[in-house]
Amino acid sequence: MNRYWSSVVGELEPYIPGEQPKIADLIKLNTNENPYGPSPRVLQAVSRETTDLLRLYPDPGSDRVRAAVAGQCRVQPEQVFVGNGSDEVLAHTFFALLNHESPLLFPDITYSFYPVYCGLYRIRFQCIPLTADFGINLDDYCRPNGGVIIANPNAPTGRALGLAEIERFLIKNTESVVVIDEAYVDFGAESAVELVDRFPNLLIIQTLSKSRSLAGLRIGFAIGNEELIEALDRVKNSFNSYPLDRLAISGAVAALEDTEYFEQTRQKIIATRGSLARDLASLGFEVLPSKCNFVFARHSERDAAELARLLREQSIIVRHFKKERIDQFLRITVGTDEACKRLIAALTEIIDVG
Amino acid sequence: MNRYWSSVVGELEPYIPGEQPKIADLIKLNTNENPYGPSPRVLQAVSRETTDLLRLYPDPGSDRVRAAVAGQCRVQPEQVFVGNGSDEVLAHTFFALLNHESPLLFPDITYSFYPVYCGLYRIRFQCIPLTADFGINLDDYCRPNGGVIIANPNAPTGRALGLAEIERFLIKNTESVVVIDEAYVDFGAESAVELVDRFPNLLIIQTLSKSRSLAGLRIGFAIGNEELIEALDRVKNSFNSYPLDRLAISGAVAALEDTEYFEQTRQKIIATRGSLARDLASLGFEVLPSKCNFVFARHSERDAAELARLLREQSIIVRHFKKERIDQFLRITVGTDEACKRLIAALTEIIDVG
Repeated sequence: MNRYWSSVVGELEPYIPGEQPKIADLIKLNTNENPYGPSPRVLQAVSRETTDLLRLYPDPGSDRVRAAVAGQCRVQPEQVFVGNGSDEVLAHTFFALLNHESPLLFPDITYSFYPVYCGLYRIRFQCIPLTADFGINLDDYCRPNGGVIIANPNAPTGRALGLAEIERFLIKNTESVVVIDEAYVDFGAESAVELVDRFPNLLIIQTLSKSRSLAGLRIGFAIGNEELIEALDRVKNSFNSYPLDRLAISGAVAALEDTEYFEQTRQKIIATRGSLARDLASLGFEVLPSKCNFVFARHSERDAAELARLLREQSIIVRHFKKERIDQFLRITVGTDEACKRLIAALTEIIDVG
Repeated sequence: MNRYWSSVVGELEPYIPGEQPKIADLIKLNTNENPYGPSPRVLQAVSRETTDLLRLYPDPGSDRVRAAVAGQCRVQPEQVFVGNGSDEVLAHTFFALLNHESPLLFPDITYSFYPVYCGLYRIRFQCIPLTADFGINLDDYCRPNGGVIIANPNAPTGRALGLAEIERFLIKNTESVVVIDEAYVDFGAESAVELVDRFPNLLIIQTLSKSRSLAGLRIGFAIGNEELIEALDRVKNSFNSYPLDRLAISGAVAALEDTEYFEQTRQKIIATRGSLARDLASLGFEVLPSKCNFVFARHSERDAAELARLLREQSIIVRHFKKERIDQFLRITVGTDEACKRLIAALTEIIDVG
C-alpha cells in the first residue's frame, strides 16, 4: 500500500461492473440493460434542457424528480431520496443507516456490490446462505442484526419474494433497518413501497436504469419514512450538493411521467423472457423462475464458463460469475426477440457440436 | 437522533450551498457561476448523444474525459481522475488520501465544505488562521500533519499563492498529501499541475463548473501521481461505478477541447472583474485582490448583511457568510458587464441614501 493512502484504501476490493466492450454488431446480454430506448419524451425533455442554462447549478434537492417519484409511487415527496444511480443511493444507505454494532445481514448470493460497501465503510456483515433452490427464506434473518438488505427480486438469481413474506418479516424485525433493493421489481415482482407508511424502518430502493431504459443517465431513488430520508439527505449534503445534473433531472421526470411507454416496454420484456426461458429449457438448461429482465440458467452437461467463451466468439456476451454455488450458471439479459433468437441459434449450434 | 441512524449521522453539519432562487429577472451573483453559456460545441455534443443509447451504461472510467484532461493539462491519462463535480472528487480525496492520525490542515477561512467532509469521515483537522490581510502563509503549515488542503486561489477571499511558494512548501512537506483545490485557477492564478511529476504527494483538483460554464453538468477532476489516482479509483469503484452519465461525458470532452471559446470567455470575465473592483472601490469598498470569477469586498461604513438584504430587494443576490472575521464582507460573482453595472447602480443608490 502507498504510504499516502488512508488505511482503509489498501483493504478495498472494488466492485467490478459488467464489461462495456466496443465490438461492432455485439449482442450485449451481460449488464441487464433495457433492449428498448427510453421514452421519446425523455429525449425531448433532455433536448429542451440543452441550453446556455447549463452554466447554472442544478437544483441540489432534485425536487422535480422527488415529486415525480412521489406521484408515481403514491407517497409524499418527503419520503423520497434521489441519487446518481441506485449505486450511489445504496452507498449513502450503507453509510447512513446500516453501520451498527451488530452485523448487517444479506444473502450469500446477491448483488455483489453489498460486501464492497461494507469494506468501504468497515461495516460488519454476515452472509445468510440461499436455500438449496436459490431462494431466500426470511426466517433465516430472524436473528440479532444491525440491518438487513435484500434484493427483491434477487440478482443474479432472478427469484422474488412475495409481499406477504416481507410484511411478516417486518412485523418480527422492528429494531433495525430493512432495505429492499427493488432494482428489477418492475419486471413482475411485488413492490413493498405500500408498506413504508406502516414500518418506519423500511427503505425501498429503485432505479431508472432498467425498466425506464436510462442506465446511461444515472438516476436512482429511495422511498421510506421521513426520518430515514433525512439521514440520507444529511449524508448526501455532506458529500456532494448536486448529484444529479440538469439533464438527468429533466430526463428522469419525463421517464417517470410516461406510464404508457413504461407499460409497453416492460410487458414486451416479460413476454420475451417467457419464450427465452422455454427455448433455453428445450436446449437442456435449468432456468430459475425469473421476475427480472434476465434469466439465470445452467446447462445439465456443458460448463458455463466455456459456453460464455464460445458465445463470445460469436459476438454474444452474457455474464458468468466465478463464484461458489453459481459458477455453472449464466446470467442472460432479456434482449429484443431478435437478439434472443440469435442467442438461441448460437447455443443450439454450440450444444449440438459438443 | 433517530434510532435507525448510523452513529455518525447525528453529528453531521451538512454543507449549505448558495441558494438557487426562482425569481424572475434575477441578477444572480451568489454562486460563482459563469455569466456566459458553455461552448456551442458542448450543446452540439450533448445533442448528438441524446439518443436511444441512453439505455446503455456509460463508460465507468469516463476514459474520454480523462484523455481530454490529459491533453489539455499535458499529463498522462493515468494521472487523471474524473468525478461528478469537484465536490465528489473532493469527497473521495478526503476519504482516500486525507484520513490519517495527524490532523489535516487547512485555512480557517476557505471553502466551507472542507470541515464538512472531515465530519463525514471523522477526520481530525486543524484550521490555520489566514494572515491579517486574508492571505495564506505556507510557513504556518510546516508542522506535523496528516495532509494539507489549500484552495488556490482561495475562496471566498479570491487571493492566490504563486507557484514558487507552493513549490517551496512541497520541498519541505514530503510526508503527507498536499491537495491544491484549483476550482478558480483559470481566472488568473498559476496552476501547480506542472509540479505533479516531481512531487508524488501532490494532487490538483479542478472543475468544469466555473471557467468551462458547466455547473449544471457536474464534472470535476483530479491530477496527480498514478498511485494517488489509484487510491481515488479504488474508492470510486467501491462507491459508484458510473459517476458520470453519457451526456456529461460528451459535454465535458467538448468543453475541454474548445480552447478558443474558453480563452475568450475567461478573458472577458477577467476584464469585467477589473472594472467591477474599481467601481466598488470608488463606492468606498475595500476589495481584496482577486484571481477568481468573484470579488470579496467590505464597505468602510455599511453593514454587509444589510447591504445583501437591500440588494436582494432589488432582485440582486450576492453571498454573505455569517462567519467570524469575514462577516463584514460580501462575495460578489463577476457577471456580465451589464449585470455588474446594475449591481453598481443599485449599490450607489443604497449607499447614497444611507
